[in-house]
Formats: sequence, C-alpha cells, structure tokens
Amino acid sequence: MLPDKEMKLPEDLKNMSRGELEELAKEIRERLVDVVAKNGGHLASNLGVVELTLAMYSFYNPYIDRIVWDVGHQTYVHKILTGRNAAMDTIRQYEGLSGFPKTEESCADSFNTGHSSTSISAALGMARAKQMTGADYKVCAVIGDGALTGGMAFEALNDAAQTFCDMTVILNDNGMSISRNVGGLSKYLGKIRTGKSYTRVKKGVKKVLGSIPWLGKKLVLLIHKLKKSIKLMLIPGEFFEDLGLEYIGVVDGHDIEEIREALEKAEKKKGPVIVHVMTKKGKGYRPAEDNPALFHGISPFDKETGNVTTLSGGSFSEAFAEKLTELAADDDKISAVTAAMPLGTGLEKFEHKYPERFFDVGIAEQHAVTMAAGMSICGTKPVIAVYSTFLQRGYDQLLHDVALQNLPLVIGLDRSGINGQDGETHQGIYDFAYLGHLPNTTVAAPCSIKEMQNMLSMGMKVFEKDSQPDIHGCFVIRYPAKERLTERKGLLSYTELEYGKGAVIYDSANGGFADLCIMSVGAIAEEAVKAAEKLTLNGVSVRVFNARFIKPIDEAGIIQNARNAKCVITVEEAVAFGGFGERAMLICKNNGIDTKLKVIALPDEALPHGKISQIQHMYGLDADGIISAYGEISNEA
Amino acid sequence: MLPDKEMKLPEDLKNMSRGELEELAKEIRERLVDVVAKNGGHLASNLGVVELTLAMYSFYNPYIDRIVWDVGHQTYVHKILTGRNAAMDTIRQYEGLSGFPKTEESCADSFNTGHSSTSISAALGMARAKQMTGADYKVCAVIGDGALTGGMAFEALNDAAQTFCDMTVILNDNGMSISRNVGGLSKYLGKIRTGKSYTRVKKGVKKVLGSIPWLGKKLVLLIHKLKKSIKLMLIPGEFFEDLGLEYIGVVDGHDIEEIREALEKAEKKKGPVIVHVMTKKGKGYRPAEDNPALFHGISPFDKETGNVTTLSGGSFSEAFAEKLTELAADDDKISAVTAAMPLGTGLEKFEHKYPERFFDVGIAEQHAVTMAAGMSICGTKPVIAVYSTFLQRGYDQLLHDVALQNLPLVIGLDRSGINGQDGETHQGIYDFAYLGHLPNTTVAAPCSIKEMQNMLSMGMKVFEKDSQPDIHGCFVIRYPAKERLTERKGLLSYTELEYGKGAVIYDSANGGFADLCIMSVGAIAEEAVKAAEKLTLNGVSVRVFNARFIKPIDEAGIIQNARNAKCVITVEEAVAFGGFGERAMLICKNNGIDTKLKVIALPDEALPHGKISQIQHMYGLDADGIISAYGEISNEA
Repeated sequence: MLPDKEMKLPEDLKNMSRGELEELAKEIRERLVDVVAKNGGHLASNLGVVELTLAMYSFYNPYIDRIVWDVGHQTYVHKILTGRNAAMDTIRQYEGLSGFPKTEESCADSFNTGHSSTSISAALGMARAKQMTGADYKVCAVIGDGALTGGMAFEALNDAAQTFCDMTVILNDNGMSISRNVGGLSKYLGKIRTGKSYTRVKKGVKKVLGSIPWLGKKLVLLIHKLKKSIKLMLIPGEFFEDLGLEYIGVVDGHDIEEIREALEKAEKKKGPVIVHVMTKKGKGYRPAEDNPALFHGISPFDKETGNVTTLSGGSFSEAFAEKLTELAADDDKISAVTAAMPLGTGLEKFEHKYPERFFDVGIAEQHAVTMAAGMSICGTKPVIAVYSTFLQRGYDQLLHDVALQNLPLVIGLDRSGINGQDGETHQGIYDFAYLGHLPNTTVAAPCSIKEMQNMLSMGMKVFEKDSQPDIHGCFVIRYPAKERLTERKGLLSYTELEYGKGAVIYDSANGGFADLCIMSVGAIAEEAVKAAEKLTLNGVSVRVFNARFIKPIDEAGIIQNARNAKCVITVEEAVAFGGFGERAMLICKNNGIDTKLKVIALPDEALPHGKISQIQHMYGLDADGIISAYGEISNEA
Repeated sequence: MLPDKEMKLPEDLKNMSRGELEELAKEIRERLVDVVAKNGGHLASNLGVVELTLAMYSFYNPYIDRIVWDVGHQTYVHKILTGRNAAMDTIRQYEGLSGFPKTEESCADSFNTGHSSTSISAALGMARAKQMTGADYKVCAVIGDGALTGGMAFEALNDAAQTFCDMTVILNDNGMSISRNVGGLSKYLGKIRTGKSYTRVKKGVKKVLGSIPWLGKKLVLLIHKLKKSIKLMLIPGEFFEDLGLEYIGVVDGHDIEEIREALEKAEKKKGPVIVHVMTKKGKGYRPAEDNPALFHGISPFDKETGNVTTLSGGSFSEAFAEKLTELAADDDKISAVTAAMPLGTGLEKFEHKYPERFFDVGIAEQHAVTMAAGMSICGTKPVIAVYSTFLQRGYDQLLHDVALQNLPLVIGLDRSGINGQDGETHQGIYDFAYLGHLPNTTVAAPCSIKEMQNMLSMGMKVFEKDSQPDIHGCFVIRYPAKERLTERKGLLSYTELEYGKGAVIYDSANGGFADLCIMSVGAIAEEAVKAAEKLTLNGVSVRVFNARFIKPIDEAGIIQNARNAKCVITVEEAVAFGGFGERAMLICKNNGIDTKLKVIALPDEALPHGKISQIQHMYGLDADGIISAYGEISNEA
C-alpha cells in the first residue's frame, strides 16, 4: 500500500476507508523504524505524526497549499506521502534526501526549517502574500508545544491575532521538546490535556445553552471565582482566545477522521485558527514510546531491541557536563543553564546531582542568555551549554546584555564546526564570525576533551576577575559533539594552558625551521596531525600549532611559528570571513612576514548534509585536503 | 523639594504626605521638561512614570533591591530620585549622565538596558541568584506593554511561571510602544483597560461571594458561553493566570498610594507576580500628552510651544520611505514591514498611502524577518526597514530563514554607524560583522541619500533574479538617520550605480598617481571628502574612493586605487573586525600590493554616548583624524 510513486493528494487519501488508512499508517511506521534504524535520524516525533500527516493530506494538497513544518525533523511521513518513499533509504546521507524540509527537494516542501519556532511567522507571511496577490492556496503551520515556548512563535501569534489572514496553526501537543517540556505554557497545556474528558462532554451539550443576556458585573466576579475554584476545569484554549485567536481542540491526534473534521472546521472560519492536536511521541514503536527523548534523534539502532548499534567515541558534551558537575561540588554558586537540551548537552548529569542549581528555560536561547546575565550580576556563576547554531538566536543578548556590560559568563558552545547529517541549518560554522567582534569576550577552541576541561576550569576565572584581570567577561568554549583527536604516537604532550596562547602539538622539525607549519584551531587538529604524520613520512618537516584561542588570538605564537616555516596552512571548521585564517594572515602581513600562507576554511554558501568526514573532504578540511594544499603552495613557493 | 543630594529611600518618600508627593511629582515633571527641552531625549515615557517611580521608591530601596527598567529610556525620574538630579543637565552629553541605566553610573542602576524586552529575563536571573545565595533583596522588573510583544519577554514569563522565585513584574501599560501598539496582546490589554470601571466594582463586592462548591461540567460550559457573550467584561489578567502567574490589576498608575499597596500585596505573595499599572504617556505636559509618539525621543524643543528648535538636515529614513512609496505605486507586490517603528523609519508615509500593504508586527524583529521571508517565498516583495542594532535580534532568522534559503528580501538598515547620544546599546557598528558572512547576502552602504535611493531601486531586482542573477537573495542597504554628505564643490558627479562596484567621488590627482587614496564606505564619505579638500589645499593630491558595497566587495576597484596611490586610508563607522578596512587590506596583501595602508575603524569596546561628531573625533573617524593618520603614514612611507 505504501506509495512508490507520487500520490494524487488529497484525493487518494480521502478515498481510503478507515481500515485502509490504518493499514497505511502501520506500514509507514514500519518504514520509519527501518529507515532510522539503518541511517539514524529523528524517529519519535515522526512516529507521533503519522495519523496527523495522513489526515492533513486527506484535506490539504501539499503541492499547492503551503504547509510549514516547524523545526522540520517530523517530515519523514510527509516525505513518504509526497513521492519520496523510495528515496527514504538515502535520508540524511550525502546527496540523499535531507532530514528536514527542503524547497529544492520537492515543491511539496513550502519552506525550509531546522531551527525551532519559525513556522507561524513564515505561514503568516504566506497568508499575507495570499491576501495581497489573491492567489488560491491554504496555509498551515504545524508547531509542537515545545517550539511554542520560543519567543518568536509568540511574536507571530501576537501579530497574527491582529489580522484577518486565513491560516491554520496545528499545535502538535505531545508534552515534549526533546526532553520533557518546561514552563508555564506547558503546564497550561498539560491541564487542558488532563481535562480532555470535559471537552468531549462539551461537544454533546453544545446546544444546551441558548444565547445568554447581559447579566451584570456580579456575574463576572462569579465566573472568576468559579474558575479559581475549579482549577481542573479550565476552559481549553482561553489563553489563545484571550490573544484573539480562534481555538479548536482538543483533538485526538491519532484519530484521522477527527483531525480532518477539525481542519475542515478551521478552514471555514475567518482569520487565524489554532487546532490543538494531542499526539504521543514514539507512537506505535514500544522502545520509542518508552523513551521518546532517546529516540528523538538517534544513531543507527537494532530494530528488535531498540539498542543503538554504532558505539560513538568519547563525547565532548558529556565531558563538559562531567567537569562542570565536578567543579560545582566545591562551589555552590555554580549553576547550569540549558535551553531545552539537558540530554544533548550532557547536562542531565548536572541536573541529577544539583537539581536546585539546574535551569532548563525551554526553547528560549534569548532568555537563557539574559537570565544568566541576571544571575551573574548578582554574584552567582552561571554556565550555559548550548549548540553553536542555536546560540545564533541569542546574538543580540550576548552583545547587549553580556558583552557591553562586561558580565562574567561561561558558555559551552556544543555542536560547533561541521555537523554532518542534520545539514545546513545545524552547521556550527558561523560562531567565530558572530562572536569574534564582541567586546569583553573570549573564544577558545580546544583540540581535545582534556583541553576543553582545562579551558572550562580557566573560564570559571571570569567570576573572580580581580585575581586575573585578563580573564573577564564572557568566556566561550567551542567544541564539537564527539571526541576526534585521540592521544597518538608522535603527539607532543599537552603543555599547560595559558590564556590567549596556542601551543605546538606536533613537530617533526624538532624546533628547527620547518617546511610547513599547520595552524589549526579546535578539534580539526586531528586532521592536521594526520596530515603532518603523512607528510613527515614523505620527508617533509611539519609543525602543528594548536591555536587554542580565536579571541584573543596568539599574535606572538602565530608570528613566531610563521617565521619559523617555509609555508603556513591554517585550518578551521568555520566560515573564512571573520575566522582564524584571515586573522592569522592579517597578523603575518602586518608584521612583514611574507611566508606563503593558505587558509582552509568554509566559503559563505549553504553546506550540504552528509557524514562529517564527507563534508570535511568536500572542502579540503581533512588530512588529504591539507596535504594537497601543501602540494600547491610548496610548488608555488 | 527636589532632592539635590541622595535621599534616604524608601523612608524619605514614604514619610511624605500625599500633598508633598504631589508637589514633588510636579517639580519632577518641570525638571524633566526643562532638561529634555534643552538636551533632547526621552520625554513622554518619563512623564508617564513619575508617580509610578515615586510609589516604587517609597516601597523599594533602589540601592539594595534589584530594579530592572526595560529599555531604560524611562529612568530619568529614577535618576533624579537616586542622587543624580543635579547632573541631569548633562544627560546624554559626552561624559555626562547616560540616557539609560548604567551600572557604572550608580549602584541604584541594577542592570544596563537599551534594547527592548530584556527585563523579565534579567530579573528572573536575579531572583534565582537570590534563592541560591540566600541574599536579601527584592526583585522587580518594569516593562511596558509594547516591550511585552517582544518574544523574549514571553520566554521569560513562561520560565518564571514554573518557578517559586519571588519577583514582581510591573506591567506599565500605556497602550504605546513608540507608536500605538499592535497585536493580539495589545488588544487584550486594551479590553482590560476599557473594562476598568468593572475592576473598581470588584473591589467593593469582594466579599459578596463565599466559596463555591464544585458545580459540575455544565457550569464550565456556561462560563465559557458567558465569557463569549460578555466580551467587554473579560476577567483581567486571565491570560497571565493561565500562564501560571499571579496577577494584580488594574492599578491606577498615577495614584501613588494605590500602586504602593499593590506592590506590598505582590511582595507578600509567593512566586512571580504581575502588577498591571495603567499610565498615560506624556502625563502632565500637554504637547506630550497630545503627541506622545513625537515626544517619545525628541530633539531640543521650545518648552512653551512644544516645537522642535533644532532643525535637522535631510533624513535618510524619510527618503528611504519616500522612494519605497514611489516604487510601490507601480508595483502592487511591494510591501513594507516594520517592527514597531513606523515613525523612526519614516514608513508612516508608506502606511498612509498603502495601509493594506504595510505591516507593523510589534517589537518583534525575529518574527519580522521570517514573516517577510514567508511573504517573499510566495512571490511578493517585502521590504523591511529596521534599525541596525535592533536587527541584531533577527540575526539567526536572517541566516536561517533568508540567507541559507536564498530568498529575495530588501532591508533598509537605519541608524547604522555611530548613533551618538543613545550610547553603546544603539551604536550600529556591528552590522558589517554580523552580516558579512551570510551567504546570498548583499551589503551596500550609500554615501548620500541619492545613492541610497538608487541602491533601493537596484535592490528590488532581487525579486527578479532571472534578469540579473548576480543580484539575488537578501539586499541590505545600510544608512545613518541623517543626511551628512551634501553636494559640494569639487565633488565628482555621481556615476551610475553598478552592482558590487565603488566609484571615485573626489580626485585632486585628476586620475594620476595620488599621494593618498581615502577609501570610505557609507555616509562617513563626508569626512573623507572634507579631509581630502583640506589636504589638497596643502598640496597633497587625494582621491576619495566611495566603496559602496561591503559584500560583494569591489576587489578590482580596491586594487586599482591602491596601486594608483602612495598610501591608502580606509574609513568606516563599524568595528574593525570583519569590516571594510580589513577586507581591503587582505585584498591588497593577497595581490602583492604593498602600498602603506591604514584602517580607521572602531575597536571592540563599548562606545560612550555623546554627539556623533564627538564620538567620531574620539576614534579618529573625522576629517581631522584622517588628516593626522595621513601625517603618520606619509612619514613612515
């Protein structure tokens, strides 16, 4: 029954019987589990929206109507139903299907997503364009209750409420972000869910009450009083209705017929409508139902047991959290802050040990930064762990509330550099550029887990700036998810960390004038060392300079090492603009050093998805790339 | 009665009689009008919070308690009451008082603000720190109803609602941002305001109703029905209570006693409490009451008439809006988007002519960008006008929703460069750095209004990218508020605009080898030309190259002009990191040009407030600075 070629939508689905749809849902679930077990990817959220997507596409025409999937990791079912079932085996693979909506992949993908909470804004824009042009399409945003905690979703609802734009916002409420949701709104939705039995009653007795005359002010008081007395019986959707939005709910998100009816009803209303759908993350696959957070984004796993098959190496994230937890044992002013990522950042470890000093603020990076600034100015020691591309949301807050105010703060910038399979929206390659110009900010990039942990200890000194005035303000430590550089033969033992100073970690020139100095920053040191080893075997004397700091940059170290080599290659997993290589080049040129210097960095274009090693290779950011770059410049030199 | 030295707070205020307080309020208002009439500054919002501030400081001790003033332009009264009355005459002047809270100015200033919607986040951080350390201070955020539309305020409320942190959020509701507020929440608050008479009734009959027994599900239906029927009588604060926050309101914001009582009541409650205070912007000064938007931030004016005394030159903002309105006459797909700045950006002109194509989305830059992206992908032509430092809030959306997706969009980036008297948080000097690395993005910086208008016409070509494939994606035009470069003798007539190409606008070397080439970008060209004229009078041959584009940068133009001069000075009103000068230097060096090159740009430190010309002078960004830089390098050369 699974569609191998393009379906005619919505007709093909609309004409199916309940039994046929149930059968199709079952097959889709099997397909999802198969694909993700093999490739890794997002599973629990996709299992949760099988019926929702079927219901939607028995009503909407995804090729004409504009459906915006918030975050977009839950679009596997959408892809299966819109002509991409056969290609699903390639999902998240290099040159295969993306794990997120991509307009260039299919005209059924209306808008690219990846980061949270953008869908209502985009949909409102589409609805406004429709009003302006008179075009004929329906507009729908699908947003999770987790994504709804992101401030821009509220900005969009607030704006939508003042319009007469026809659009439907499906609130896909499963009570989870990646981990369990937090915050007042989540509690509110939780109460609606608990009170669901009531909404069924509501349907039945709809006509019991006729129109009510104006009953005077005392009645309002009575109502208020009643509401307070009957906590559980709050009226679903009042929150949205107060904002001025129509509300339909709660709808059973696994009942196709019920959802379709709700969508039809919503479409008939004028202006924006919220359809509140309740789904279960991981639905239909027991291991994912039992542990939806684990199966949110997962590596390849065994279908039968649900156990992950690919064992990953050491993790920077876990080591960061471990070290932070260790430091917190001796200092009760240390706290940890996350924006809905206790698992991904490893901070659950900290939470477990110090729940009263752990703050999960929801998908709310802006607030996370400024809230931490507030903690900091009152003498405590907040440490935020956040993904590189998600901190982009907090750029203004970092500048405005932290850097300009010179407040002490430590940030663990996780998932920095190339992030492979999640693709362009998750490539943590802009952080040097967006952090490099902030005053009172340090940007450090360790080459190994051990170095990262030392940097964390050093970073905590910002909270005692009187002892070491150099180390003040915001201290950012930038690392990838997984350990890459492991101790290897020929690698110099790590020298003690010194603020703003790099260190030579490999040297086949033994301190003498080298044929090549590779200056690397961050975990890409692994490839620098590999290249150095290979070149050394071929008789080239190579030194690897691990720059450690982007800001302040080690000018003396760069000058000295550039002077002491015939040519220099810089390597970094970041865009060239505002990056390490450009800085190093400026320093060399300004100091009259005309050593041949080549920068290997990323261009300002959207990076494709694929294995990290594939993307590195594409851009010359691996041992092979470094070796061939050496070939080029040594010939020129 | 006005305090010339530090008052003992809250005692001194608490012990005053109602009459004394009223007298003090009157004197403060006179002082405010005097100071702002002379210096310019924020008036209407300060007039609106006189009683509120007096009430607060008859309850809070601002030296111990942590008061966070959102945006912070309404802290003049706060400054007068906390020992800075005498210094008020220096407000917004170089080395004088800041127009915003500054922790370095007084320990009564708990947190620096400037951008909107940060206060609840900071206050929650302070309340959490208090819980962690057991310190003894009260925490209070004061936020306007306009600032509440910013998403991060919602993120903070959502997080606060899950805590038991004691903090008071004063919602200073005056129905305005700078202009009239927009959005669903604003309508909601408006309804509460209209229904205010009811809340007075409420007080009287508080005890009429006893506790109500559990009355069954039908009652809930009845309540719902009633609520819908009695629209005006909605229950104040339900929106916040649904979020899980305690609510007290509506309080008359010009009744000191009533406010103080509400604050006392709030402090007794556990957890975060909203105190909803209604104030009138401009209160007590007729011209400001009549035109609060004009008197939000105003130039020096005549006290008696309220007329602005300093006539400003031509305005980039107005000219931008004028040109856009003109273009829109011939193309009904063009729309204008603003985030609560119809006045400041000049777009009110557009709104007046094309209200159905004008979108004010509230203080919501994140949403503004992605909403526009949604409009764009559906074939319309949105143009956003936004201040340089406020677009920092939309950095992730620009990258994630516009640049990576290569969507056409035009942005007028207003208030770029040095912004003088508003100080560090409003200096639009980071835009080259935060925009320069975005793929599919053009960054143009006109030297004059005429050039800006030509650039806007060129920018609109992104919407027809098939005709000129080079011009695609996001086209940003960066300009200051006021015209600076005026047509002057010796200035070359403007050559036709060419994409990605600069032009020589002054040349006393008449095409020959010049002693000096000044490469300038943006409106700072005025100073470059002034310097060139002076140097020419002293026998130095000077060429001024107006770079026009930061991205793509005119490599050929830079190379040619650098080759054709003995030395080069670059000037830009932006931080050096990621800026034009660094780019130009890299280009020269990479092309083997060893012309002596000096970059004049801004360091990565917080810029003080003062007149634009003063700040320019401080950093060598004026004719004098350029001339003395020439003195240095010509001696070296």
